[in-house]
Amino acid sequence: MSSKAVAELIGTFILVFFGCGSAVLMGDLIGFHGIAIAFGLSIVAAAYGFGAISGAHLNPAVSLGFLVSGRMPAQDFLVYCIAQILGAVAAAAVIYMIASGKADYTIAANGLGQNGYGPGYNGEYSMMSALTFEFVATFLFVSVILGATQSDAPAGFAGLAIGLTLAGIHLVGINITGVSVNPARSIGPAVFAGAQALGQLWLFILAPLAGGLVAGALHGAGITRSPHAVSQG
Amino acid sequence: MSSKAVAELIGTFILVFFGCGSAVLMGDLIGFHGIAIAFGLSIVAAAYGFGAISGAHLNPAVSLGFLVSGRMPAQDFLVYCIAQILGAVAAAAVIYMIASGKADYTIAANGLGQNGYGPGYNGEYSMMSALTFEFVATFLFVSVILGATQSDAPAGFAGLAIGLTLAGIHLVGINITGVSVNPARSIGPAVFAGAQALGQLWLFILAPLAGGLVAGALHGAGITRSPHAVSQG
Amino acid sequence: MSSKAVAELIGTFILVFFGCGSAVLMGDLIGFHGIAIAFGLSIVAAAYGFGAISGAHLNPAVSLGFLVSGRMPAQDFLVYCIAQILGAVAAAAVIYMIASGKADYTIAANGLGQNGYGPGYNGEYSMMSALTFEFVATFLFVSVILGATQSDAPAGFAGLAIGLTLAGIHLVGINITGVSVNPARSIGPAVFAGAQALGQLWLFILAPLAGGLVAGALHGAGITRSPHAVSQG
Amino acid sequence: MSSKAVAELIGTFILVFFGCGSAVLMGDLIGFHGIAIAFGLSIVAAAYGFGAISGAHLNPAVSLGFLVSGRMPAQDFLVYCIAQILGAVAAAAVIYMIASGKADYTIAANGLGQNGYGPGYNGEYSMMSALTFEFVATFLFVSVILGATQSDAPAGFAGLAIGLTLAGIHLVGINITGVSVNPARSIGPAVFAGAQALGQLWLFILAPLAGGLVAGALHGAGITRSPHAVSQG
Repeated sequence: MSSKAVAELIGTFILVFFGCGSAVLMGDLIGFHGIAIAFGLSIVAAAYGFGAISGAHLNPAVSLGFLVSGRMPAQDFLVYCIAQILGAVAAAAVIYMIASGKADYTIAANGLGQNGYGPGYNGEYSMMSALTFEFVATFLFVSVILGATQSDAPAGFAGLAIGLTLAGIHLVGINITGVSVNPARSIGPAVFAGAQALGQLWLFILAPLAGGLVAGALHGAGITRSPHAVSQG
Repeated sequence: MSSKAVAELIGTFILVFFGCGSAVLMGDLIGFHGIAIAFGLSIVAAAYGFGAISGAHLNPAVSLGFLVSGRMPAQDFLVYCIAQILGAVAAAAVIYMIASGKADYTIAANGLGQNGYGPGYNGEYSMMSALTFEFVATFLFVSVILGATQSDAPAGFAGLAIGLTLAGIHLVGINITGVSVNPARSIGPAVFAGAQALGQLWLFILAPLAGGLVAGALHGAGITRSPHAVSQG
Repeated sequence: MSSKAVAELIGTFILVFFGCGSAVLMGDLIGFHGIAIAFGLSIVAAAYGFGAISGAHLNPAVSLGFLVSGRMPAQDFLVYCIAQILGAVAAAAVIYMIASGKADYTIAANGLGQNGYGPGYNGEYSMMSALTFEFVATFLFVSVILGATQSDAPAGFAGLAIGLTLAGIHLVGINITGVSVNPARSIGPAVFAGAQALGQLWLFILAPLAGGLVAGALHGAGITRSPHAVSQG
Repeated sequence: MSSKAVAELIGTFILVFFGCGSAVLMGDLIGFHGIAIAFGLSIVAAAYGFGAISGAHLNPAVSLGFLVSGRMPAQDFLVYCIAQILGAVAAAAVIYMIASGKADYTIAANGLGQNGYGPGYNGEYSMMSALTFEFVATFLFVSVILGATQSDAPAGFAGLAIGLTLAGIHLVGINITGVSVNPARSIGPAVFAGAQALGQLWLFILAPLAGGLVAGALHGAGITRSPHAVSQG
């Protein structure tokens, strides 16, 4: 396994371990505000810890944005996605192991931080609200990522800015979908969380990828890219 | 549409989508503290994502401060303001769409994150308190922005410092006015939120612009500008 | 008035306006956690907005630390202290004006964010606890400030690190004293808040100054200073 | 005592004073979210205040990671550990002094921020959950630290990234173990907190050291190190 794949795997593990871990293990105690911060800080951790190796995409929708805007070689894309999904599944498994050491925990009652929508999920928003939120939020997220990492953005700040952006997105949307904007983050807990999560997984693959695709296309076409930015990987 | 206008439009969309979105969709769950953080982080997102293109003013009062202090060409001012207002209105529309997918949401009962004061609005502060707060807070906000972006301030930190400043301002004033310090942010939800919001909109245009004007004038006169700073756009 | 004095005055205004303002106007809604963050972010705002002019001490105990460690000319010290106190008093006056626009606000019942200890103040900690906390916290705070601004600390980060340090200190001590670590911040609201605040003010002048003095002396003696740091103002 | 030892002692004092201090003195008022932020900000304070002197390890597990990956001279290791433990014990003593000035405080009822697990401790998670969490969290923490401080990580950001990582880890695990990931942090309060804390201390020495060891070994072997990083202390 290449060192880039290792970095994406561990980085996405951090994302799910902090984000879904805080929801499952501390959600009642820290609320949606605390969970939002945990998701955001996971990006900061992974970006500064592993960004020098792989760029710390941690997210197939982000990798798709880099691919479509011409800033990532095509042969890396699939490797990144597989590593991200493996990291997310591994983190969900570890959260499940830890949670099982609490007497009153069951995956059916407490979940594993999976995304969802509709009856029985958080604010019970409609599927259309979920789709709209996930598409718009991922479009904004990937646009910010591509902008913050272009050659004339302030050097070194991208990891911090991107993490805080993800926290902001969670402060808007946890009650709607739990916030995915990231197919790997959704796949991780869904593998263990049962039928509803698996049945709704298509939305959390489709909408984030569509948002990342549009963000990458607009950036690649120069519409949301700094006119002075030099193309870079 | 110029790439600067696109950047201001999307950036102000982010500001309203994060800030008002968190208030409308998550307000009961994250409280005023969480909403304050969401507003602050929206600036971080827009500044690092789009700042290299347009400077990420996102706010007519900020643009006025740059104009008055001689750091923005006059012909850009109107374009920036229009793009900012369009972005804010678009974000309010998207928030409304998403919110409407929750069974018990109505704009009359739950609002759209609009600003206000007096009977029926948050802490029911007087109009004079609202005016004082909005003028003072915008003066401080625009002074910090002009200072943090001058030539001898630490490079790269402005977006972070300005976002955290906006979060701090919200921690003081959400109960007074919901915090505007930004006419575009106030216009966005007011367009949809009905008579009270529209009737009080004058205050959230006038007071922030006055605060930005005074901040720009003092900075332009060298009173709040670093003596070593080189004039720059 | 010199531009340094203006910067210290406005900067300390921001400190008290954000910190005490959040306590008075939003305290019930955001809790001690929110107030702690507001105090911390005020430093970030003032440091990046005005630090290039005056260094953004905002605090006589900090200025004393710079003076004692040989990093501030003696003739500046008094000017800084006076400007800081004027800024703090002005901010307390503006908070009072705004608060008075809420029907049920009285300074006797709701206070103005003044420091205190003993019966009737927050957790009703003893005077000895208050003294210990204020001395230790100010010693740590000023040590961090002197360290973070020395020549071989990472450039540009000081304002952020110092603000976050102040937030951390507030997360420890609001229930003990409301957290001063800054005589100017204590004097501002005490002028308006009545007999108890004025009668306890000595502690919030003495303990922070003692903490700043010891921090400055140890730094000046090279004990807490980087061996590679070049002396600087 | 060398200036490096002084820096580690004061730095670890800050870690325990902010983190355990917030838990003991403000825990009921700020919740687990506030405590998590206090722990994170303590690292920011110590890293920017004292990092230029000693690197601000503040943690035997971190020092072990540097040692094992070949980035710390062996003769420093023991000195660092001793200074870290002394700083942690001193901070716990000062917290105890301050807490004792509140009428209803007893160490038996309110504790001193000690780590633990099982019956009577926070969420009453099993020993296996505690072991798993502490090992995984420390492995991630030390991996991020080694990555964020390698030669091709963005200069200056390490202190901020590491502090925010620690905050994220606390948002996951306070309910499980109170979060150690640091033997010194656990030893400090345990010295005063009585039999249960002392009896469980082995886990908070063993698991973090094991996590730091594995992180250091993988980094030293080049598996989690940037291929372009130059070896450095």
